[in-house]
Amino acid sequence: MTLSPSGSLTPAALGDALAVVHKDSPLVQCLTNIVVANYTANVLLAAGGSPAMVDNPAEAEAFATIAGGVLINLGTPYVDTSEAMRAAVRGAERSGTPWVLDAVAAGALEWRTSIAHELIGRHAPAVIRGNASEVIALAGRGSGGRGVESADPVEASQEAAMDLAQRVGAVVAVSGAVDQLTDGTRAVRLANGHPWLTQVTGAGCALGALMAAFSAVVDDALVATSAATATFTVAADVAAGQAKGPGTFAVALLDSLDALSPEQLSERVRLS
Amino acid sequence: MTLSPSGSLTPAALGDALAVVHKDSPLVQCLTNIVVANYTANVLLAAGGSPAMVDNPAEAEAFATIAGGVLINLGTPYVDTSEAMRAAVRGAERSGTPWVLDAVAAGALEWRTSIAHELIGRHAPAVIRGNASEVIALAGRGSGGRGVESADPVEASQEAAMDLAQRVGAVVAVSGAVDQLTDGTRAVRLANGHPWLTQVTGAGCALGALMAAFSAVVDDALVATSAATATFTVAADVAAGQAKGPGTFAVALLDSLDALSPEQLSERVRLS
Amino acid sequence: MTLSPSGSLTPAALGDALAVVHKDSPLVQCLTNIVVANYTANVLLAAGGSPAMVDNPAEAEAFATIAGGVLINLGTPYVDTSEAMRAAVRGAERSGTPWVLDAVAAGALEWRTSIAHELIGRHAPAVIRGNASEVIALAGRGSGGRGVESADPVEASQEAAMDLAQRVGAVVAVSGAVDQLTDGTRAVRLANGHPWLTQVTGAGCALGALMAAFSAVVDDALVATSAATATFTVAADVAAGQAKGPGTFAVALLDSLDALSPEQLSERVRLS
Repeated sequence: MTLSPSGSLTPAALGDALAVVHKDSPLVQCLTNIVVANYTANVLLAAGGSPAMVDNPAEAEAFATIAGGVLINLGTPYVDTSEAMRAAVRGAERSGTPWVLDAVAAGALEWRTSIAHELIGRHAPAVIRGNASEVIALAGRGSGGRGVESADPVEASQEAAMDLAQRVGAVVAVSGAVDQLTDGTRAVRLANGHPWLTQVTGAGCALGALMAAFSAVVDDALVATSAATATFTVAADVAAGQAKGPGTFAVALLDSLDALSPEQLSERVRLS
Repeated sequence: MTLSPSGSLTPAALGDALAVVHKDSPLVQCLTNIVVANYTANVLLAAGGSPAMVDNPAEAEAFATIAGGVLINLGTPYVDTSEAMRAAVRGAERSGTPWVLDAVAAGALEWRTSIAHELIGRHAPAVIRGNASEVIALAGRGSGGRGVESADPVEASQEAAMDLAQRVGAVVAVSGAVDQLTDGTRAVRLANGHPWLTQVTGAGCALGALMAAFSAVVDDALVATSAATATFTVAADVAAGQAKGPGTFAVALLDSLDALSPEQLSERVRLS
Repeated sequence: MTLSPSGSLTPAALGDALAVVHKDSPLVQCLTNIVVANYTANVLLAAGGSPAMVDNPAEAEAFATIAGGVLINLGTPYVDTSEAMRAAVRGAERSGTPWVLDAVAAGALEWRTSIAHELIGRHAPAVIRGNASEVIALAGRGSGGRGVESADPVEASQEAAMDLAQRVGAVVAVSGAVDQLTDGTRAVRLANGHPWLTQVTGAGCALGALMAAFSAVVDDALVATSAATATFTVAADVAAGQAKGPGTFAVALLDSLDALSPEQLSERVRLS
C-alpha cells in the first residue's frame, strides 16, 4: 500500500471542500443510533450541514432520493429502523445519492454484521467508515472486536481496507490516532485529533455524518472523506486547547467546528 | 391580521406565568424524538417543569390522563411510538389535558403529515408549533419544506397560521427570527432569541415541550404559549452573552433558563 | 435497620474499586432509554468504563454473555427493547454476568412495573436502583410515584429496601440527598452530591450504568455499588464548584469524573 495523494488531495483542496459545504449546506439524512443522534445533528449544524433524521420505513426511501447524502449507522439497529435502512439504500440507489456506512461493532455482533453485508451487497456505499476491527471484519478477515472498541491497531487494517475498497468500490476510512483512508488506489493519512475524541461517545459516528455531508457536494469521494476527517479532527485540535476534560471538550468541539474556516483547515491539517 | 394583544398579553402576565410554572412544576408527558429527548428533558427541568418521556402504546393513554400537559413531536416517528401518540391523544381527550403538536417536517414527509392530520382530527391540540413551512403545510397551503428546515419566511405563514388556528381551535405558534403566535383572534409577536438557536438541534422541539408545561398551568393558551416562547428566547439572549459558539450556547441556555426570574422575563421580553 | 459497614466498606475500599475500574475498563452493556443513552455512555467513558448499547432482541443475549456487566433501565421501554431486556437477562443468567435493574417509574406505570417484576423473577439482578417511590413499589408497598419523580422521602424507603434486598438477594440502592444502599444485611449511607443532580436528566440513570461497571470488576456487590455511588457523587461535588447552573454542571461532571483519582475519592467520600 503506497501513499499516493493525487493532485487534488492537498490541504487547499480540503479547505475548498469545506467552503462548498458552508455554501451549499447539504441535506444529510441520518439513520443513526439513539446514543449519538443528538451530537451527530449538532456536529452537522456546526459544520454547516443540514441534518434530517428520517429513519422510519415509511419515509426513508423517498427522503433518500432528495437528500444530498445519507448516513447509515448500525449503532443501535432495531427491526423497524433496519427496514428503514434498506429503504434508504434503495432510495440512494434510485437517485444516485451517496451514502455512508458506519458499521459500528461489525464483526463483534452477528445481526448487524449481516445487515451491513446485505446493504453493501444491494448498492455500494460511497464510504465505509469504521475502526480497525470493524473494517477487518467487513473485509472478511480477523476475529472481530470487543463491542464498539477497536481491538486492532490501525496499521493492521491497512491491507483489509485496501481490499474492501477495491471489492466494494468505496472509500474505506479507518479511524485511529492517525486516520487512514483509501479508495483502493490512493491512500491518505490524517494526523490531527486528540485522545479525548475516544472519550466522547459518538465522535466517530458524527464524523460519519460529516462524511455524508461532504460526499453530497464533492464529487471525489476520497477528497470528500478526507476533508470531513480533517474538518473534524482539526476542530478537535482547537477544542482541546479550550477544554478541561472530555465533557468541556465535546462542547468546545461544536464551537470550534462552527468557527473553523477553510483557510484554517488548510493551514492546520496534517496530511500525508 | 392585526396585532391585538388583549389585556392579559402583557410582559407582566408572561412573568406571572413563569412564576406559576416555578411553583407548580407541571408534569409534562413527552412523546418526542430520539434526537432531542435529552435536551428537551433538560430544558423542562431548567425551567421548572417535570418531564416524563412516556412514549409506548401500553402506558401513554393512562399517563396522559394524569399529566399536566402532553407534547407530541413528530421528529422521528415509528410504528410503535405513533401508536403511543394516538393513545396519548385519547388520554388527553378523556381528561382534558392540553396537548401540543410539534409537526416536525410536516408537508415534506407524507407519513408523519398524515399522522399529524389524524391526531388533530381526533382531538384538537391546545397548541400547534412549527416553522413557517410546517404551518403552511398543515393549513393545506404551500408545497412543503426541506426536511426540518424552514423554506418560507415567517411572514408568509401569518395567514396560514390564522386559518389553521381558527379551523382547529388551537394556538398556532410559528418560530422564526420573530416568533409569531395566534389563537385565531389575537396575535402576538415576540422578538427575543439568537441565531445560534437555529444551530442547536432540538431548540424548537424543546420550546414545544415548554409550551406544554405552561399550558398545564395557565388557562389562556395564547398567554401560556407566549410565556413559554418568551422564557426560552429571553434565556437565549442571556446565554448568547456567555457563549462562544453553538456548543457553549446550548449549555449556557440551560443555566440561564434555570436562573431566569419572572421579573427578568417581564423586563427583557420584546412583545408586540 | 442498623448501619453496619463491614471491614471492606471503607473509603479506601471504594478508592480501590475505582482503581480497578480504571485498570480493567469493564465492558458494560446498556439497555437504556432514548433520553439518557448519550449521557450514560459519556459518564461510563469518563469514569473509565467501556459502554456498548446493545439493546435489540437479536444480539442482546449473546452480548450479555461476554459483557462485564449489564444495565437494564426501564425509562422508555418498547416492545422491541423489552424483548431485548428479557434476552439480556437470559444471557446474564447463563454466564453469571451481574446485571443492574433501574426501574424508572416503577409503581407509577403498569407495563414497565410488570416487566421489572418479570425480569427480577427470572434471574436476580446484582443491584436494584431507584428512588424511594420506585423501591417501595417494587417491594410491594406504597402507592407509586409521580412519573420519574420521587414522591417519598428516602427515609421512608429504608424498610422497603431492606425487605426487597433480602427477598431478591440483591443490593438495593435508593437515591436521594443521602444515598442509601443495603444488601439486606449491611447498610451504607453516602452523603455526597449536589441538588443540581436532580436537574440533569439521566443523572440517576448514568449512576445505574456505573453500578454495572463496578459490579463487573468488584465481587462484593455492596462495595461495588457504594463505590459507583461515591465516584459519581464526589465528582458531582467537584463539578458543582466549577459550574454556573445545571447545564454547565452536567458538562463539568464529565470532566471531574475523568479527573477523579482513587485517592481523591477516598478522601472526599462521606460514608457512614
